[in-house]
Amino acid sequence: MAKIFAYSIRKDEAPYVEEWKKAHPDVEVEYTDALLTPENANLAKGADGVVTYQQLPYKADTVEALHEAGISKWSLRNIGIDNIDLKKAKELGFTLTNVPVYSPNAIAEHAIVQAARILRQDKRMDDKMARGDMRWAPTIGREVRDQTFGIIGTGHIGRVFMDLVEAFGAKIIAYDKFHNDEVEKKGYYVDSLDELYAQADVISLHVPSLPENIHMINDESIAKMKDDVVIMNVSRGDLIDTDALLRGLDSGKIFGAVLDTYEDEVGIFNANWDQKGVPDARLDDLIHRDNVLVTPHTAFYTTHAVREMVMQAFDNNLLMIQGKEPNTPVTL
Amino acid sequence: MAKIFAYSIRKDEAPYVEEWKKAHPDVEVEYTDALLTPENANLAKGADGVVTYQQLPYKADTVEALHEAGISKWSLRNIGIDNIDLKKAKELGFTLTNVPVYSPNAIAEHAIVQAARILRQDKRMDDKMARGDMRWAPTIGREVRDQTFGIIGTGHIGRVFMDLVEAFGAKIIAYDKFHNDEVEKKGYYVDSLDELYAQADVISLHVPSLPENIHMINDESIAKMKDDVVIMNVSRGDLIDTDALLRGLDSGKIFGAVLDTYEDEVGIFNANWDQKGVPDARLDDLIHRDNVLVTPHTAFYTTHAVREMVMQAFDNNLLMIQGKEPNTPVTL
Ligand SMILES: NC(=O)c1ccc[n+]([C@@H]2O[C@H](COP(=O)([O-])OP(=O)(O)OC[C@H]3O[C@@H](n4cnc5c(N)ncnc54)[C@H](O)[C@@H]3O)[C@@H](O)[C@H]2O)c1
Ligand SMILES: NC(=O)c1ccc[n+]([C@@H]2O[C@H](COP(=O)([O-])OP(=O)(O)OC[C@H]3O[C@@H](n4cnc5c(N)ncnc54)[C@H](O)[C@@H]3O)[C@@H](O)[C@H]2O)c1
Repeated sequence: MAKIFAYSIRKDEAPYVEEWKKAHPDVEVEYTDALLTPENANLAKGADGVVTYQQLPYKADTVEALHEAGISKWSLRNIGIDNIDLKKAKELGFTLTNVPVYSPNAIAEHAIVQAARILRQDKRMDDKMARGDMRWAPTIGREVRDQTFGIIGTGHIGRVFMDLVEAFGAKIIAYDKFHNDEVEKKGYYVDSLDELYAQADVISLHVPSLPENIHMINDESIAKMKDDVVIMNVSRGDLIDTDALLRGLDSGKIFGAVLDTYEDEVGIFNANWDQKGVPDARLDDLIHRDNVLVTPHTAFYTTHAVREMVMQAFDNNLLMIQGKEPNTPVTL
Repeated sequence: MAKIFAYSIRKDEAPYVEEWKKAHPDVEVEYTDALLTPENANLAKGADGVVTYQQLPYKADTVEALHEAGISKWSLRNIGIDNIDLKKAKELGFTLTNVPVYSPNAIAEHAIVQAARILRQDKRMDDKMARGDMRWAPTIGREVRDQTFGIIGTGHIGRVFMDLVEAFGAKIIAYDKFHNDEVEKKGYYVDSLDELYAQADVISLHVPSLPENIHMINDESIAKMKDDVVIMNVSRGDLIDTDALLRGLDSGKIFGAVLDTYEDEVGIFNANWDQKGVPDARLDDLIHRDNVLVTPHTAFYTTHAVREMVMQAFDNNLLMIQGKEPNTPVTL
């Protein structure tokens, strides 16, 4: 009987592990809520594969410890592999899988909702309600359908976001280095970012943080945008020059911003600062503006996405154990 | 040259009055920001018609004063006519118009956005962020697409809301006393409210407050709903028995609620209570729950809707002045 051992199963993941177990009575599944470390790699002894989530870096010592526990089939429940010693993994004969696409909708739904909230001045109205000021004016909203959305990056997430924006009846223009056929057919692509900046009321980033994209939103690009533009980043923090964003907000050029990510977020997001205070003044500033919505990289954090991450990781692991090609292998 | 006099033109309406003026150089348009009262009805003297917004009740004395100013063509920029002495208006030979449909999208967009926020636990996450707690768990979201939406009332607003819910990929069931052909074709109708209550994860009200509908959401109907149901009312406050709603929230049966309207809102919404305190304990309670989103009947309050209200009212008034049939007459 095949056996899979899983590390760092969170409370919100456990029901899906149980669901996968039930659907695979022929596979033995054991798990712990502890993160994989060199010290507890031996928990996996006797298993045919492991499933983990990358949170801590997996350096050479962790990879070696897993190898010593007899493991070579390793499935991540997330996408990121930057902090794994891949060279060591290759050297020790590991095969690795990740989950590159778990729920574009989780991120796209979050994005359209936050865009609508900024356009409606919802944070201002919520603040007013909280202190008993129930006057309408001057907190009037703009409807999503009346805006032109500029979507930068028409990959998995950008396209689902596009479908939602379309359903609201808004106008869409898009930019991507590589054109998608369906988007092309709809005639949404403009030829340059400058064209997009000149026309869009809402600009949403859905590209990876490749070197060429870093700080693509900066003083120069903001100057090319329409007045009262809304800037959205639910992709990667370093796509935006935060100082330039703050200058644009301060001058009133930018109507509002949606940020699910922030360039210095590592070590800050997914931690609790309510006693010590937020250790980053710019982030603290952004959080407390009434025309900025900051979330701590949680756009992905839905039951649907978490279920997919668990299911796909276990599926991948079992395929490797069975000697088959996994669905989403990582090339080492 | 025809002349129209308009009362209570707010700051956010003035640009649209100017837009209408520009498009009608043959019509003289004058306006004031003062509400129409018996005392200032004479401001309209010499005009062929008046445009007003119903905020104060227009009792017999106001109607008579308008009549004495020589006015008989009266166009409201809003829908409500409940507080006008219609008998007196009829007796004095008035013809009256209102604006029954100005932007179903304003309300439908607000509704889907607030639904998504409740499902995502966004208010909880926003509260956490505001105090520096950036931990993800346990604030996990449910995606809109994974829900079954029960839409009660498939009129103008209910149907636009339905289109948006559909675009997110959610399952839809609907109930209405009178079936709409397109909704029928899609097979969305269930035969009874009980069926809808038994299946829906999110229940949204889009019916008028006819006597038969008052307190349709009560202890009995809530008991028939699924656990963790989301209840939404962007229609009329008295559709919900507020005490029953509070009991359902307290017991944990109801996951969250969206309220753009409240049964005792008259005299409270669109006023400022930040010094005196909110004069309604139940409303104050609802506002400060982290799983309830209350807005002060502002779902309609968008630039699109306000523009429509102004444009349609002036169009109606001019048609009456020209001796033509107005687009949306009120039968006296
Ligand atoms: N907020 C979250 O929780 C969350 C979760 C998952 C992914 N993300 C981020 O979302 C972003 C998009 O993810 P995806 O799955 O849609 O990726 P994807 O690879 O499917 O799409 C990316 C697109 O960007 C295009 N692109 C790359 N460089 C470009 C450039 N310089 N100019 C224009 N287009 C360019 C590519 O051609 C591709 O079409 C990524 O940055 C990813 O890290 C965020
Ligand atoms: N929040 C806001 O800012 C705002 C603005 C405008 C309108 N509204 C409210 O929204 C609601 C819907 O407006 P609309 O323009 O869509 O109205 P509508 O007349 O177009 O549609 C109402 C629908 O409800 C149905 N209905 C009536 N009684 C019913 C019952 N007992 N059971 C089932 N269905 C029933 C009708 O058949 C009709 O299809 C109204 O209550 C209106 O007052 C709210």
